[in-house]
Amino acid sequence: MPNTHLSRLYRLDFGLLTDLYQLTMAYGYWKTGLYRRRAVFHLFFRKSPFGGQYAISAGLALAIDFLKKMHFSPEDIQYLGGLTGANDQPLFDEGFLNYLQRLQFSCTIDAIPEGTVVFPNQPLLRVEGPLLQCQLIETALLNLVNFSTLIATKSARIVQAARGDSVLEFGLRRAQGIDGSITATRAAYIGGCHATSSVIAGRLYGIPVKGTHAHSWVMCFDDELTAFEQYAKALPNNCIFLVDTYDTIEGVHHAVEVGRQLRHRGHEMQGIRLDSGNLAELSQEARRILDEAGFPEAAIVASNDLDEHQIQHLKEQGARITVWGVGTRLATSYDQPALGGVYKLSAIQDETGQWADRIKLSEQDIKVSNPGIQQVRRLLDANGVPVGDFIFDTKGPAPGGVLWRYGSEQLASPPSSSYTDLLTPVFEEGRLVYDSPSVSDIRAFSLKQQGLFGPEVLADYPNGLARELFDQKEGMMKKL
Amino acid sequence: MPNTHLSRLYRLDFGLLTDLYQLTMAYGYWKTGLYRRRAVFHLFFRKSPFGGQYAISAGLALAIDFLKKMHFSPEDIQYLGGLTGANDQPLFDEGFLNYLQRLQFSCTIDAIPEGTVVFPNQPLLRVEGPLLQCQLIETALLNLVNFSTLIATKSARIVQAARGDSVLEFGLRRAQGIDGSITATRAAYIGGCHATSSVIAGRLYGIPVKGTHAHSWVMCFDDELTAFEQYAKALPNNCIFLVDTYDTIEGVHHAVEVGRQLRHRGHEMQGIRLDSGNLAELSQEARRILDEAGFPEAAIVASNDLDEHQIQHLKEQGARITVWGVGTRLATSYDQPALGGVYKLSAIQDETGQWADRIKLSEQDIKVSNPGIQQVRRLLDANGVPVGDFIFDTKGPAPGGVLWRYGSEQLASPPSSSYTDLLTPVFEEGRLVYDSPSVSDIRAFSLKQQGLFGPEVLADYPNGLARELFDQKEGMMKKL
Repeated sequence: MPNTHLSRLYRLDFGLLTDLYQLTMAYGYWKTGLYRRRAVFHLFFRKSPFGGQYAISAGLALAIDFLKKMHFSPEDIQYLGGLTGANDQPLFDEGFLNYLQRLQFSCTIDAIPEGTVVFPNQPLLRVEGPLLQCQLIETALLNLVNFSTLIATKSARIVQAARGDSVLEFGLRRAQGIDGSITATRAAYIGGCHATSSVIAGRLYGIPVKGTHAHSWVMCFDDELTAFEQYAKALPNNCIFLVDTYDTIEGVHHAVEVGRQLRHRGHEMQGIRLDSGNLAELSQEARRILDEAGFPEAAIVASNDLDEHQIQHLKEQGARITVWGVGTRLATSYDQPALGGVYKLSAIQDETGQWADRIKLSEQDIKVSNPGIQQVRRLLDANGVPVGDFIFDTKGPAPGGVLWRYGSEQLASPPSSSYTDLLTPVFEEGRLVYDSPSVSDIRAFSLKQQGLFGPEVLADYPNGLARELFDQKEGMMKKL
Repeated sequence: MPNTHLSRLYRLDFGLLTDLYQLTMAYGYWKTGLYRRRAVFHLFFRKSPFGGQYAISAGLALAIDFLKKMHFSPEDIQYLGGLTGANDQPLFDEGFLNYLQRLQFSCTIDAIPEGTVVFPNQPLLRVEGPLLQCQLIETALLNLVNFSTLIATKSARIVQAARGDSVLEFGLRRAQGIDGSITATRAAYIGGCHATSSVIAGRLYGIPVKGTHAHSWVMCFDDELTAFEQYAKALPNNCIFLVDTYDTIEGVHHAVEVGRQLRHRGHEMQGIRLDSGNLAELSQEARRILDEAGFPEAAIVASNDLDEHQIQHLKEQGARITVWGVGTRLATSYDQPALGGVYKLSAIQDETGQWADRIKLSEQDIKVSNPGIQQVRRLLDANGVPVGDFIFDTKGPAPGGVLWRYGSEQLASPPSSSYTDLLTPVFEEGRLVYDSPSVSDIRAFSLKQQGLFGPEVLADYPNGLARELFDQKEGMMKKL
């Protein structure tokens, strides 16, 4: 099963999937001769979403798909040729448009594999290449990585709150656009969801699909019992009855009645679904009825504006729900619908080919970007459990000391016996050298990562800066 | 310029753009023989978004695009044939799959044109047709209409807060997926935004595109003044200088200096952009500097987490901003990232072809859906100004009295001299009979609509139910 959908979904070349200012800057770089100057940009977020400690990286396979289609069609070039600035003067001249039409993507990109637990300020992508190209691809990379990382993280939080119960992603009807939905489903699966209602995502990614019936099925028949009976006759191997169209408890009794008929015919009712009311109380009552009627294995699915907080709350109230259907609040990441990932220039070569570091200042020190050509090193103990991460500059000396509190305080390094560098080669001079795993392999990897970062590991997890990088940054801040 | 992007964007047929339960229900309808029974569904929202009074309908052209591609490819059918339920039994039999593969969309759809001011419970779409088809298309219609309506409404709120200033949509990098962004840009334009940064949306829809340069441009040069000078040399007709890379006020002085050089060469600086800090104070100071230097026409663009509340707040503080760049909070509808639109069965034919009304009960009376085959009538005064809306059942008698407070209270009808029925024929038995206007025409219509619904019209605007419909609903609720 292929691991991305963009190239199969979209007809267009993706050169124009960018903000206009990337193209006007590209034109400026071209006119000033800076366009081939090599530069380094990093894509990172400054604050973990949802008030949490970390994020689950995702979206790399989509970014790869985009980069493979980063061309300008003749129609794209014609469109750009028609754009005008003040006085109706063309924005771009013909030489530049010819250059764009011939442009071959040739950047070198390293990235943190999808499914990895990542922390603020760690580059999820490092892009090195001709300044003009690095700039052109910024917007799409941010779009693709921000959203997938956001949803994978939300999904991980929800799956963790469900403590081993199944979580189904139901968000297609409320998602932000068609691939807003497909991308959300993919990322939700990577984060740990077990299945989706979205058939198109199931087909594109091989994600398990689930679904039985809605209220409208029940409303098409004269009464609920008939509706369940007719459904069971048509789909005896897919029976989860939605019981709240009229009266939930009566609905459970109807489900039991049809469950008995099914069993008589050699099939087993799989469960019931609650979609309204007090889910904690109703699930307890439903469990009692189902158990007493001889259906202890029947699942109790719940849906209705669920998220990790609701699930935890329901569990605390003793809900007997075994499967959680999560829609809008997962697929749109309702309580934080955007990750504030940014893409910052950190080094550029001068005329002689020497690297010059760059930082972006900010009124808040914490928002000042890191310079250099960065890598993220994760230290592991003898059991392979992470004990601390730090960012260092690959063009500097081998990292010596580390400021473990992101520059504000120096602590002793945690004892470690090995390390892994998180950024992995993806493109070398425009050539793809990375083979994206299948989404189910990414999901398995992500669940393993989440397992490694248990509460005791996360408590006060050090996320630092190499001393040399810290000193370099401090010096630059003072100078500016 | 075409008015939709889906068919140009997507390679796939859209039959599988649905929740699995729509297909299992379709299979159930097919097995029970109900599949050709005619049914009526309405798509509506129960509560206006953002705590506002109304929404701007949008997404119809996308829904039309989807319906034109509502087919199942041989690969889709093969995929469905491989789906299994309990005991690894196939979910669907071959007869049904053959039926799906031959399926021709044949529903009759009426819809409220895009850009219209609409109120809670008013059907934005009315779908009448074979039960199986009505059901299959539910999920995609909700996805497309919910999101576009949400963003068009957000955009209208932001544009109204800007009180005549230009509003630019900048959200591509934080939007939820690629067409999450393109769809948002289209809807934002319909709601009243003036331009976008998204080049792909500009090319697909002819929406004006805007952009100049980012911080990274400035960071590529040794100092800000050189950066502005080089930019002005390359793009003399597109100069809005981003002034906050190092020190904002110094940046304004640098912009003035380069503005003078530009003027000397026969060009005019178009303005400056502020992207951080106290935007009210900085814009006042920048205005003073620009005016004193002889640039009273130079625009002051502001960006940085803006929405309608921020804009109003900045205006109250006396900000001298003339152009508002709005990104994340518009493109993801940050403070409410989903519209809770629903799609409810309201009538179904019995074996004899007689219509039987249906409602969906709820613990809250306000959430009980309306029965019938509905239309929305808008009464207008002699000047064409709306004075009140009501929903009636087209298969009932001509509407007599109206319960103007949505059923809870009867008031005298407002004096009116004409009316317009909002639902307009779009598909007749599967044949498209509606010609979507261009997005710029929809935008013009929407701005006119927003003008009609001024504060005095909206104050206590009656949104009622025809007495016959109310009585029918009450009777059904009692019976159930």
